[in-house]
Amino acid sequence: MARSIDLIGEWGSLMILREAFGGTTRFDDFQKQLGISRNLLSTRLKKLVDGGILQRQPISADGRRQEYVLTPMGEDFVTVIVALRQWGDRWLFAPNPHPADMYDAVDGSKIARLEARSEKGRLIGREDLQLRRHPPG
Amino acid sequence: MARSIDLIGEWGSLMILREAFGGTTRFDDFQKQLGISRNLLSTRLKKLVDGGILQRQPISADGRRQEYVLTPMGEDFVTVIVALRQWGDRWLFAPNPHPADMYDAVDGSKIARLEARSEKGRLIGREDLQLRRHPPG
Repeated sequence: MARSIDLIGEWGSLMILREAFGGTTRFDDFQKQLGISRNLLSTRLKKLVDGGILQRQPISADGRRQEYVLTPMGEDFVTVIVALRQWGDRWLFAPNPHPADMYDAVDGSKIARLEARSEKGRLIGREDLQLRRHPPG
Repeated sequence: MARSIDLIGEWGSLMILREAFGGTTRFDDFQKQLGISRNLLSTRLKKLVDGGILQRQPISADGRRQEYVLTPMGEDFVTVIVALRQWGDRWLFAPNPHPADMYDAVDGSKIARLEARSEKGRLIGREDLQLRRHPPG
């Protein structure tokens, strides 16, 4: 996990990913949504591109205008985004529901609550999570 | 999610939570594990306590020695920890498996892969995640 953290680098980069999952792709739109300096945004986007989480894609014929889209590695981050948001909904917005909810764009139903379970199906609480340096087998 | 991020504050605080999930409770042990200055650790622990994620608990009769334990809000963060770690395992350590794996301390089986699904059971990809400001109903 330390490596995940090194790669993402900082919470500011997580905010960029959140916007990317919301459909933002252009530098100017990220800048508008996040309200950070162009220099800082540029540095963070570069780090996410270098880390393989975002990729640049030309959007004009001469290749001078580019957009930033999630790579497969970036798309797979959806679980972290959903987990973080659901946790926030449960603890930071109660008793008022979160103003923005998450839905499946295809079937229209809500995103189900993520639950950490063992492969045998047991719900994992904090006391049940065991980290092993040398797993058996 | 912006509020979650404000609360946790920074990745350094996430590292503290990771240690807390690993069973660390004492200031000196956090300091040893994380290798950061006592001042910085103290600031971050205070922020997590103020945010309701950790709580101080006396460990000596006179109450002068304290330990830091997860609150129910902190324990519920387990989903984010598992999601982040599994993502890291898939993308940052391949093709070599992560040196530390996650198990259920009770039944001994691995922690199952977290998957974002709709309430109707559809697996959610990046394109399927829709955020609504004003959910129906």
